[in-house]
Parts: sequence; C-alpha cells; structure tokens
Amino acid sequence: MVTWSNFDTLTSYEELPKIERVKLAEVMAGENGADRVKKYSIPMAAGLTYNYAAKQVDDQVLEGLEKLAKEAQLADKFKALYNGEVINTGEKRLVLHHLTRGQLGDAVVADGVDKRAFYVEQQEKIAEFANKVHAGEITNAAGEKFTTVVQIGIGGSDLGPRAMYLALENWAKKNGLFKMEAKFISNVDPDDAAAVLNSIDVAHSIFILVSKSGTTLETLTNESFVKDALKNAGLDASRHMIAVTSETSPLAKSEDYLAAFFMDDYIGGRFSSTSSVGGAVLSLAFGPEVFAQFLEGAAEEDKLAANENVLENPAMVDALIGVYERNVLGYPATAVLPYSQALSRFPAHLQQADMESNGKSVNRFGEPVNYPTGPVLFGEPGTNGQHSFYQLLHQGTDIVPLQFVGFKNSQIGTDVVIQGSTSQQKLCANAAAQVVAFACGKEDENLNKKFDGGRPSSIIIGETLDPKALGALLSHFENKIMFQGFVWNVNSFDQEGVQLGKVLAKKVLAHETDGALKAYSDLLNI
Amino acid sequence: MVTWSNFDTLTSYEELPKIERVKLAEVMAGENGADRVKKYSIPMAAGLTYNYAAKQVDDQVLEGLEKLAKEAQLADKFKALYNGEVINTGEKRLVLHHLTRGQLGDAVVADGVDKRAFYVEQQEKIAEFANKVHAGEITNAAGEKFTTVVQIGIGGSDLGPRAMYLALENWAKKNGLFKMEAKFISNVDPDDAAAVLNSIDVAHSIFILVSKSGTTLETLTNESFVKDALKNAGLDASRHMIAVTSETSPLAKSEDYLAAFFMDDYIGGRFSSTSSVGGAVLSLAFGPEVFAQFLEGAAEEDKLAANENVLENPAMVDALIGVYERNVLGYPATAVLPYSQALSRFPAHLQQADMESNGKSVNRFGEPVNYPTGPVLFGEPGTNGQHSFYQLLHQGTDIVPLQFVGFKNSQIGTDVVIQGSTSQQKLCANAAAQVVAFACGKEDENLNKKFDGGRPSSIIIGETLDPKALGALLSHFENKIMFQGFVWNVNSFDQEGVQLGKVLAKKVLAHETDGALKAYSDLLNI
Repeated sequence: MVTWSNFDTLTSYEELPKIERVKLAEVMAGENGADRVKKYSIPMAAGLTYNYAAKQVDDQVLEGLEKLAKEAQLADKFKALYNGEVINTGEKRLVLHHLTRGQLGDAVVADGVDKRAFYVEQQEKIAEFANKVHAGEITNAAGEKFTTVVQIGIGGSDLGPRAMYLALENWAKKNGLFKMEAKFISNVDPDDAAAVLNSIDVAHSIFILVSKSGTTLETLTNESFVKDALKNAGLDASRHMIAVTSETSPLAKSEDYLAAFFMDDYIGGRFSSTSSVGGAVLSLAFGPEVFAQFLEGAAEEDKLAANENVLENPAMVDALIGVYERNVLGYPATAVLPYSQALSRFPAHLQQADMESNGKSVNRFGEPVNYPTGPVLFGEPGTNGQHSFYQLLHQGTDIVPLQFVGFKNSQIGTDVVIQGSTSQQKLCANAAAQVVAFACGKEDENLNKKFDGGRPSSIIIGETLDPKALGALLSHFENKIMFQGFVWNVNSFDQEGVQLGKVLAKKVLAHETDGALKAYSDLLNI
Repeated sequence: MVTWSNFDTLTSYEELPKIERVKLAEVMAGENGADRVKKYSIPMAAGLTYNYAAKQVDDQVLEGLEKLAKEAQLADKFKALYNGEVINTGEKRLVLHHLTRGQLGDAVVADGVDKRAFYVEQQEKIAEFANKVHAGEITNAAGEKFTTVVQIGIGGSDLGPRAMYLALENWAKKNGLFKMEAKFISNVDPDDAAAVLNSIDVAHSIFILVSKSGTTLETLTNESFVKDALKNAGLDASRHMIAVTSETSPLAKSEDYLAAFFMDDYIGGRFSSTSSVGGAVLSLAFGPEVFAQFLEGAAEEDKLAANENVLENPAMVDALIGVYERNVLGYPATAVLPYSQALSRFPAHLQQADMESNGKSVNRFGEPVNYPTGPVLFGEPGTNGQHSFYQLLHQGTDIVPLQFVGFKNSQIGTDVVIQGSTSQQKLCANAAAQVVAFACGKEDENLNKKFDGGRPSSIIIGETLDPKALGALLSHFENKIMFQGFVWNVNSFDQEGVQLGKVLAKKVLAHETDGALKAYSDLLNI
C-alpha cells in the first residue's frame, strides 16, 4: 500500500540539506574525476548509458537520495501506476502510456477491456493500414499512391510525434526505410496550415486528425482549413483523412474518415508518442516495423525504471538528482542539450512533457505545496547552443543544471576529415569538453576569462540514434518526470492550468468581454 | 560624460525595493484594468505598440524606474555607443550594429573609414550581386539560374538570419517577392550538412560562407563538407560560393569565392542580422528592397530608443521592467511568446541575443557583481505553447515574466470561419485571453482549478508581420538587451564564456587529455 505524502513531510526532506555539499570542481579534477566517470554510470536500454559523474553528488548525497526514494516509495508508486491504480486523481483516471509498449505488471482491465490488448490491437490496425498505403492498396480517388502524410494536432499530438519524426527521418532515409514525408499542422495561426498546404501536393497527401476528445479548437479549425483546401482542389476529403481519437469522441464513428484509430483517456497527450498518436504518423512515414522497434526501446527502458535498486535505475537517479538540484541546491531551471541535429525538437517535446506535468502548485489532493516543483526546461542542439546561450550557462549569475545527450556515430554517415578529425569526432569532442568545462572551470587572473566551474551536468551516451535508442531516450525522460511528480506529490497527469485561457478566449470571440479583456480585444481588433 | 557604476552602487538600487509592490490581479480587475491598458502603452515604429499594462508596475514603480534610467545614464550611454565610443571594453571595440541601418548621431570614423559609408557600401554591393543573380546575370557554370541559397554559419551567423528568413518567407511568397529558397547549415554534426545537401539541387545552389574571423571551426568544417559535395557532383565550388567576413580574414581575398561581402569587428555576431550577415541571404531570398525595408523598420525603432523621455521609449521601459522583475521581484527566467507561426525561431534568436549578452558575472571592468544579471530566456509560438509549457506558467511555483507578440492580420491571408470566427481572430483572441488570464487569475474552491494570477506580461501588437515590422521588433529587443546591460554594468558585447569549451574540445581532438576529460572522451569513442 503506498502513501502519498508531501515532500516536506518526509524525513529525507529534513536530512538532505544537512549532507555536506559536493564541491564539483574539486571532485572532478585529476584522476578522481576519471574515477567518478567510471563509477557514476548506469546502463540503459538500446546500448545507452546514463552518466552522472559531473552532477553535484557523491556517495553521501546518493545515500540520502536513496533514502528519499524509499521513503517516497517511488518504486511502489510506479508499480501501482503500471498495475492500473487511479494515479491521475484529479481526473480519476488510470495512467497507462507504459502499456502501449509492453506489459510491465498485471493485466490492466478498464471499462471491461484488457487495455494492453486494446493498445496492441490499435497498433496492429495501424500497421495494416500503413502497409496498405505503402503497397498502393489504399490510394487517392484517382488510384494513385499517397506520398505525404500530414498530422493535424497540437500540444501532445504535435510536439512528441514531430520530434520523433525529425529524430528518425535521416536514419530512415539512410537505411532505405523512408516511406512518406511527414508534415505537421498545429497552430491556429492560419499561416501555419496555409504554409504547409502550399508546400505539399494535396492530391497525394493523407491527413491524420489527432484529437483525443474530438473537440480541440485548433485541431478542428485546422481540419476545416484542410477540408476547404481539398474541396478547392476538387478532392473528396473523406478519401484523404484518418482520425486518431478516443472511441467515445464524435470523430470515432464519422464517415468523414478513411479509418479511425483509437487512444483513450488513460494516455495523456504529452505521453502519447508511443500510442496511436505517434503510431499512425510514424508507421506511415517509416513503416510499422520501425515504430515497433521504437516501442521496444521504450519498453526495455521502462523495465529498468521498475528496478527497485535505486542506483541501477537511471530514470530514478536522474529524477532524484533533479529534485536535489531544485529543492536543496535551489537551481530554478534546467537545460537539455542533445549533441545531435536530429534531436532539434526533442527539447521542445520535453519542455511540454516536463513543465506541463510538474508545473503545479497543489498536491494530488488539491492542497497547496510549500516547496518548488517542476523547473523551467529549455534546450537547443549542440554545438549550436555553444555559440548562443552557453555564455550564460558558463558565466551567468544563476546555475542551470544540464542534461547532455550524445551519440558516437552519425545517422547518415557522410562525413569529412578536417584538421585530422571527422565532423562526428568534433561533435563528440565538444560534448565531452563541455561537460568538463562546466564542472571544472578554469582559473584566470582576468576574471572575465575565469570559469568558476561547479555547474552540474549529466550525459546520456549512445551508439547511433536509431528507433530503439530513441524509444529508450523518450521512456527515460517520461519516467524521470513521473518519479519527480511522485516526490513532489503532485498529479503529473492533469493540466488544469491550461483551462482558464481557453475560457477567456471563448469570451473574447463571443464579444462577452469587459475591463482589460475588452481593452486588449480592441487593441487586437477582434 | 558617462559614469559606469555597478547597479548596487546606485541610489535607485536601494530605493526600488522600498516602493510598494503592485498587486497585479487587483489593479488589472474591472475598469481599472481597462484604464491601465490605455495608459501603459507606447507607440513603436512600423505601427507596432508596446503595451505593459499587465506588468507589475504602477506610476510609483515607473517613477522609480525613471530615476534609475537617469541615474544609470541609459540615454547618455546609448548616445556614447552610437557616437562611436569603445563600449565593448573587454575586446576594446566600438559597437556599431545600429549604424548598419542608419546614422543616429555623429559620423563614426574608425580605422580611417566612415563606418556608415562602409556598411552602406556593403549593402549596395550585396544588392547589386543579388539583382544579378535574380536576373540570371550571375549563374552556375552551365549558365543556369540559381534557385536556392544556403547559409553556412553558426550562432549569430545562423540564428538571426534564419529567424528573419522564416519570419518573412510566407509574406514574401504572398506578395510576389520570393526569389529563392534559403536553407541553413550550422551544426558541426555531419548529419546537419548531409541532410540539407540531400534536400537541395546543389547544381543550382549558391552557398554563403559566414564567419567574421574566417576561423570558426563548425563553419570551415561545413564549408569543406559542401565543397566535397560540389566536387562529387562535378561542380566548381568557386562558382557556387560567396563569403561574408571581415576584410582582414583569410576568406576576404580568397579566389575560392564568387564574391566577398564585409562586416567588421564592431558588429557582434548576435547583432549582425542587419549587417551583411543577414543582408546577403535575405537579399538573395527576397530581393534587396525587402532587406532595405527591414533595415528601415529597425532604424525607426532605434530612433525611439534614443528618446530621453523614458516613458516614450519602449525598449528602455521594457528593459527597466525586466531589471525590476529580475532584481527586485526575483523572477529568474523570462519567456517570449509570439502569436505568429512565422516567428517560430524568433525566441531562439532572442535566447542567444539576450543570454549571450547579459549572462555575465563580472562587470565591464572585470570585477565580480553582487546581483543577478541576465535571466534564462525561452519561448515557443502561441497557441502551440498554450498546449505545452503554459501549465507551469499559469500554476507553477515560480513566476515567469512573459513577453507576448501578436499581429492583427495573418501574412498569407487564407483563412476559414469556424464557429463564427476566423483562425486569425481565434489566434488574437487567445493572445488577449492569455494576458488577462495570467494577470487576473480566477478563484475556484478546487485549488487545482484556481489561478492566482499576478503573473506579469507585456504585449507588442502590430498590423501584419512585414519587413518593417520585423526590423522594428528586432531593434526593440536588441536595444532592450543593451539597456539592461548598461544597468547591470556588464559588457553585453563580448562572450568569453564560450572560449573554455573550444579549448578543451581541441585538446580532446589532439588526444591531449587526462582525468575526467579523457574518461568522457573514451566513453564517446573519440
């Protein structure tokens, strides 16, 4: 039986700040630093490694964090989650995204349905559909093959699938697995849909409408936008559209779609990349086998997250260190820095996954909490970021904890040797150099050129960014977020904070405004 | 004569915290809120308006900030800057990016050259070159027209020009001014260059190599990458490349380029969008007239920034409020939220411009400062962000000050009416709604659905995002950053914090490593 308690009621909350702070620049110097790199490392799935040698921890701090993990019952809470307890208390829902990629615990039956079987069924239906599209068995009205797939969705229906598509696009092209180009329409800004439609051949495009409720304003608006374009091109929209939605949504039974694939209320948008929401577009773009490998990587990583031995559980250690940085060391933001251009939108996806999950001020029972919860998260790929915001990260007045990601090999494999090294070697050399530069710093008489160091980072290292590695990477961060939510005792699976804006926007459009809202509406000519 | 003093030596630094805090949710309620929207508004160039009604200020706070502006001699320091004083003390350089778009003060002569004339000359040379390319007078070796332009550069040579290109791409297409597609190669990750090269027709592409020093590792590496590709395609690289560099760089006189256009050491990379660095790619993509309009918007906004009347100076007020939020209210981050898909990469550009300029811990004399300087800056377009990280912005435990940007009209003009409103109206309604939701919040017995409000934002509103408006927007933020640097007494124009990583990366590549650096290099197989 798990107990849900606020972080500040735990003994660990009192004890952690009493443990002596690690002087990172000192412990990372010399051979001791090399020893830490060897020691503070945890194997992940798909050949990845989580290395936290350059975090501000040592055996004493880790012992304190292990105590916290046990006192907060992190492993038991995860077990309760994957065995189907109502973890999303606010909305009274199970939290089942792990089940889209494997059976971690007991069978979960909800609404009279074995949910694992349900998710597998959807995956299989999508696979069959995608294979038929690729084989030219499902075509446009003229009997021609579809060449482009366009996802219409916003938030979780956009950021995750888009980031995953970009992550695998070049890998798939290189490996002869690229089936169709994917595009994404998300913003209600009409220029978003118009620009995408102008860039594609609509007659050979298939559109995926993604909305769990079937009521998301932006998505329905963009659907109409697309339908107008199809009509103007003399095309039958119902031959060009599929839906990903819940079985109870108005879209589920509509004849407006070639096919409908289902998700359900137990999968939050920001955790839906491994459900039909990611499945449809990724299976169409790269084939169902690639999507299956992606799920496999995530499932393997999930198993590691279920490990009760804290120091062998990469997501749990990552989560605990993040809590330590936020609540004990007082660092207010965190940056994700992938040394891989293919992961250009991965930080934007994590920004949603993390900030929407744990950016909360009340606990899971709706009572205020008295400690900081989720931090601001941002990031851009290295080495680009090095020529941009790294200045502040190195020498700014705030310390921002960092999460590097790097791969030994590029995806495409085309490279060039300049000054004795390949671009890929330069990329990796920069990642290694940055971790050490942030941790150790550098003395200089000119204080403008001095680096204090002591700026903590971890790094996830892999062989090549392939579907399995991507799945493992995604799972790692999803589970990290979940564990942190457990420690902070917040409900990481609702998002009441997005509601007020929607309500007020409706008032503006209905001209039911007064005061400042009317004044701003007037300024914006609405 | 201006005096450079640390912020905490000023009387204002003592006085500002003593001014009563504004209860934002209270003052923004009812008709008082509407009055504030009318009152706290400053006209900008190109029809833009800066509105700060929803910031945590009132007449008392503004009076305190005006005193600070005068005590810190912000107007005088800007005057010194544009009249050619050595403002970049660390590198002993003038700071002349304003001069690329107009003559604000005295003629500035440096190295025996009238710098305004020099920048105009470069702009004219670029215009002539671009016109010849568009007219088919400069072609590839086969006498065929170039159809694509690819910028090779990183940091300031990438983020600004890329953000500006994306901001105007659809506007130019709509208005028949789109000349050539532009692509960008920046990362040393070989997959970046390989993917761009795979996506274009190299035989009809012209490449712009952008490096002030001519020594930027990533850029030279990517140049070789591109030259290899051209050679493999049987093409003469020197017929496909131009350079943007300083006159003293090794690239300036090389016969490897069709042409070379110049910038100089008085223009920092992150402030170079209005120099040849932005000029070449934007003039090729959209024609020199569009680039000239962009400069015109920036020049007009610069003039407003020179206004000594603080409350009529939008960049100065914005800067002062940001300092108040950072140093008095203690908010550690800030978000930029453009309600315009065309500005999708504008926040990434500002992230560099702001964090690289003011993420410093020493003052302009190399002495440590004892107060927070530049904040973390991040952002994504609305309404996308609403379905992502806005949860934390509304209900997280930290308050993050916000900067909205919105336009009354879309760029393309294609739209659809759903439920009685266009997409553009929905977009604007959401922007207005969010400002009020953040400021005023909402009571609810269920604390999970309660919004405290009191979360400050400003909004810049324009008619349409066109070249002039974009120039004004860019200038506004550049000048805001400059004024904040003046208050914090930091040198906003150097970036010593990016050096250490470069040095260590070279050691890794030369295998001159030990300790942690060797251990990480081994892990990454370098």
